[in-house]
Amino acid sequence: MSKGLDHETLNENVKKVQYAVRGELYLRASELQKEGKKIIFTNVGNPHALGQKPLTFPRQVVALCQAPFLLDDPNVGLVFPADAIARAKHYLSLTSGGLGAYSDSRGLPGVRKEVAEFIERRDGYPSDPELIFLTDGASKGVMQILNSIIRGSSDGILVPVPQYPLYSAAISLYGGSLVPYYLEETANWGLDIKNLRQSVVQARSNGITCLSEANLKELLQFCYQENVVLMADEVYQQNIYQDERPFLSARKVLLDMGLPMSKEVQLVSFHTVSKGYWGECGQRGGYFEMTNIPPQTVDEIYKVASISLSPNVPGQIFLGLMVNPPKPGDISYLKFVQEGKSVLESLRRRAHIMTNGFNSCRNVVCNFTEGAMYSFPQIRLPPRAIEAAKKLGKVPDVFYCLKLLEATGISTVPGSGFGQKEGVFHLRTTILPAEEDMPAIMESFKKFNDEFMEQYEDHTGYSRM
Amino acid sequence: MSKGLDHETLNENVKKVQYAVRGELYLRASELQKEGKKIIFTNVGNPHALGQKPLTFPRQVVALCQAPFLLDDPNVGLVFPADAIARAKHYLSLTSGGLGAYSDSRGLPGVRKEVAEFIERRDGYPSDPELIFLTDGASKGVMQILNSIIRGSSDGILVPVPQYPLYSAAISLYGGSLVPYYLEETANWGLDIKNLRQSVVQARSNGITCLSEANLKELLQFCYQENVVLMADEVYQQNIYQDERPFLSARKVLLDMGLPMSKEVQLVSFHTVSKGYWGECGQRGGYFEMTNIPPQTVDEIYKVASISLSPNVPGQIFLGLMVNPPKPGDISYLKFVQEGKSVLESLRRRAHIMTNGFNSCRNVVCNFTEGAMYSFPQIRLPPRAIEAAKKLGKVPDVFYCLKLLEATGISTVPGSGFGQKEGVFHLRTTILPAEEDMPAIMESFKKFNDEFMEQYEDHTGYSRM
Repeated sequence: MSKGLDHETLNENVKKVQYAVRGELYLRASELQKEGKKIIFTNVGNPHALGQKPLTFPRQVVALCQAPFLLDDPNVGLVFPADAIARAKHYLSLTSGGLGAYSDSRGLPGVRKEVAEFIERRDGYPSDPELIFLTDGASKGVMQILNSIIRGSSDGILVPVPQYPLYSAAISLYGGSLVPYYLEETANWGLDIKNLRQSVVQARSNGITCLSEANLKELLQFCYQENVVLMADEVYQQNIYQDERPFLSARKVLLDMGLPMSKEVQLVSFHTVSKGYWGECGQRGGYFEMTNIPPQTVDEIYKVASISLSPNVPGQIFLGLMVNPPKPGDISYLKFVQEGKSVLESLRRRAHIMTNGFNSCRNVVCNFTEGAMYSFPQIRLPPRAIEAAKKLGKVPDVFYCLKLLEATGISTVPGSGFGQKEGVFHLRTTILPAEEDMPAIMESFKKFNDEFMEQYEDHTGYSRM
Repeated sequence: MSKGLDHETLNENVKKVQYAVRGELYLRASELQKEGKKIIFTNVGNPHALGQKPLTFPRQVVALCQAPFLLDDPNVGLVFPADAIARAKHYLSLTSGGLGAYSDSRGLPGVRKEVAEFIERRDGYPSDPELIFLTDGASKGVMQILNSIIRGSSDGILVPVPQYPLYSAAISLYGGSLVPYYLEETANWGLDIKNLRQSVVQARSNGITCLSEANLKELLQFCYQENVVLMADEVYQQNIYQDERPFLSARKVLLDMGLPMSKEVQLVSFHTVSKGYWGECGQRGGYFEMTNIPPQTVDEIYKVASISLSPNVPGQIFLGLMVNPPKPGDISYLKFVQEGKSVLESLRRRAHIMTNGFNSCRNVVCNFTEGAMYSFPQIRLPPRAIEAAKKLGKVPDVFYCLKLLEATGISTVPGSGFGQKEGVFHLRTTILPAEEDMPAIMESFKKFNDEFMEQYEDHTGYSRM
């Protein structure tokens, strides 16, 4: 007789989940690291793990909130600036009991108010703190909304592919159906999807990561016509490396479109302290804002959030600091701005180094990283490499990425984890390794790739891209 | 046509969830607080919100981890003791990238090792860090394990009633069936449940909150015979207010029982930084340890944990500090021990004040709080009060608790949220209000209860308990 936690009796949806970002490649990389090999983890957007320094001011504020007895210490001014002290007092005044007390399940009302003010400044439309829930990172929010929407396998979630595996994993876990739309090529979907794909996303086939306002409008029009909820994953709103298409929130574009759409399209927007120039992944701070969601639904989402009592409070303070950073004239303003600028400028340079590096490699083509933190080069695998992979029972890009890992210590994620067209292969890497390490990493990649292609290419006619 | 987030199209399991700890009473209390009324929140075990001060040493360590640049500051020794500085360096050495980097989805390996060492010291049996997962509080761990176990409504989860509403809520959310066994009275369940109830839990009918070793053995025997997974919620292992039955972990008792049981019973044990004398609820730190769980299942649980990337890292550091506190001889040792002792002694006194207070009230009977942080007095509601409640469409104990809230600002949870026998009513309150406030709170309760009973009692024969 089998037991409740035997593998064969587990919830099937749990078993169906695939999560490539921390899948076979990551597990193998962790093993190699344990064996003493130096691993460059480019599998997950985790800037601090690759050397990015935390911003000073928010860390000072949260350290003071953690140790409120320092606020009474006569020496505190020797190690903390006055504006950090003032801000710590502000956040402590928003809690009852400091960082050690559960907050409301939606997060501290005072921080949700700061988020609403940030959204209003950013978009030019008022935002209601009651429709903003703080979360332990954006992923937790996405999971909560998907859990509320999905009733069973007949509920489809449209997901652009290549996708962030959070979506496919959470959809599996909750028993829904992922309905992919490919970002690069016409595929055989129904009319609506075809429209969506054609109008919104064909731009992507030219390597455009950042949607234009016109694209966003068409996407919202589609949601309106088809009664589709839009989940706007806007965690990379600070990470834009081109100047033509600045960030516009889906909410701003929706409200700009006016009635009836602005009151009809159901929209949930997500943001986090893990990305941007903050990169505070380990703190797990995020929020989601609900637009045009009925109050009864908001109540249900609140109730379910309450089961795990409250998002972590230090993460909520980081979120407050992100949406309400030091202002001109504050003691810490110049340092804060300088630190942030230096992170973003370096990311922009790294985006160029990486894209150029990949494009200089045999059988590798790569679009420029216009935003976010990732590069998604296509690897044109020779047929003999594909055969070799199949003999080992491996997906061809997993085979390539494992060999890359063993040879160089570079830990990437195979494109198959994100979705890609049949017979086309990619890898995903972050652009986060330290700028000074980047040339050596790209050199090491190139050397590996040259040898790989040399080994598997059929020299009788396969040409360099 | 309805939309994905309209109330009628939501996941039915989400709608079915009931979560009384933050239910109608809590919502009404929050409204009253907004209107300026002073509310005493005794609905949730949230010690810092009611004035418990955080322990100094762990806060110093985490503040330094948040602001690692302080470690290079020549003035740091003026505000932080040397052992806190050393410990902060230790934890930072266990991370790559400090608190701002995602850890492994199971938590930092170094902290999991500290947890394993703690369990070994506590129980006398070795523990494997690979079978310990850190979580954002114990609730998140419980939810993850239930999500893995529950396949559908034919999977029953045995839950002792009165229960912590986390269990009923999570079981609803994941679509399983709660199989209650009442802790006080013989009820009409099948033979196995009857055995379980009779052997393990009848002790409770005499007011025993802390199970004896013999009870735990019988419980484990039941799990062995019936192939039932045991989820051991041991978050109150530090909160024991009697001396006859000290804390024994389910794992220790199981392993003491020897083969075959010690290798057969599937056990998941939970612990947290939110309870004990720490009370660091807002930090969201916890762990679960798996015993006799097959490796394939551990892999599945790891995979699902990975979807939300990592538990918050400051919470992991708190957990490390809890399981590895200052030792005799350390600079901070005496202060740390003194702070912890003072919290626990005060809780013990408050348990007495509250129990005695309730038992001095008309139509109220209350067992002594032997452990944890709660009191669960039975309120013998007069028939006319029950009728008055029904006229308003309220469950009678909800009616009583709402009136208590409006009259006194004391925010409790009706017993119906935890389960109780038909026609019997309770309220649940924490024993956490500050010790100096306790007499006034009990006085205020007594005054309300006297008036309530006066109003609704049938003076023709209903006698005082």
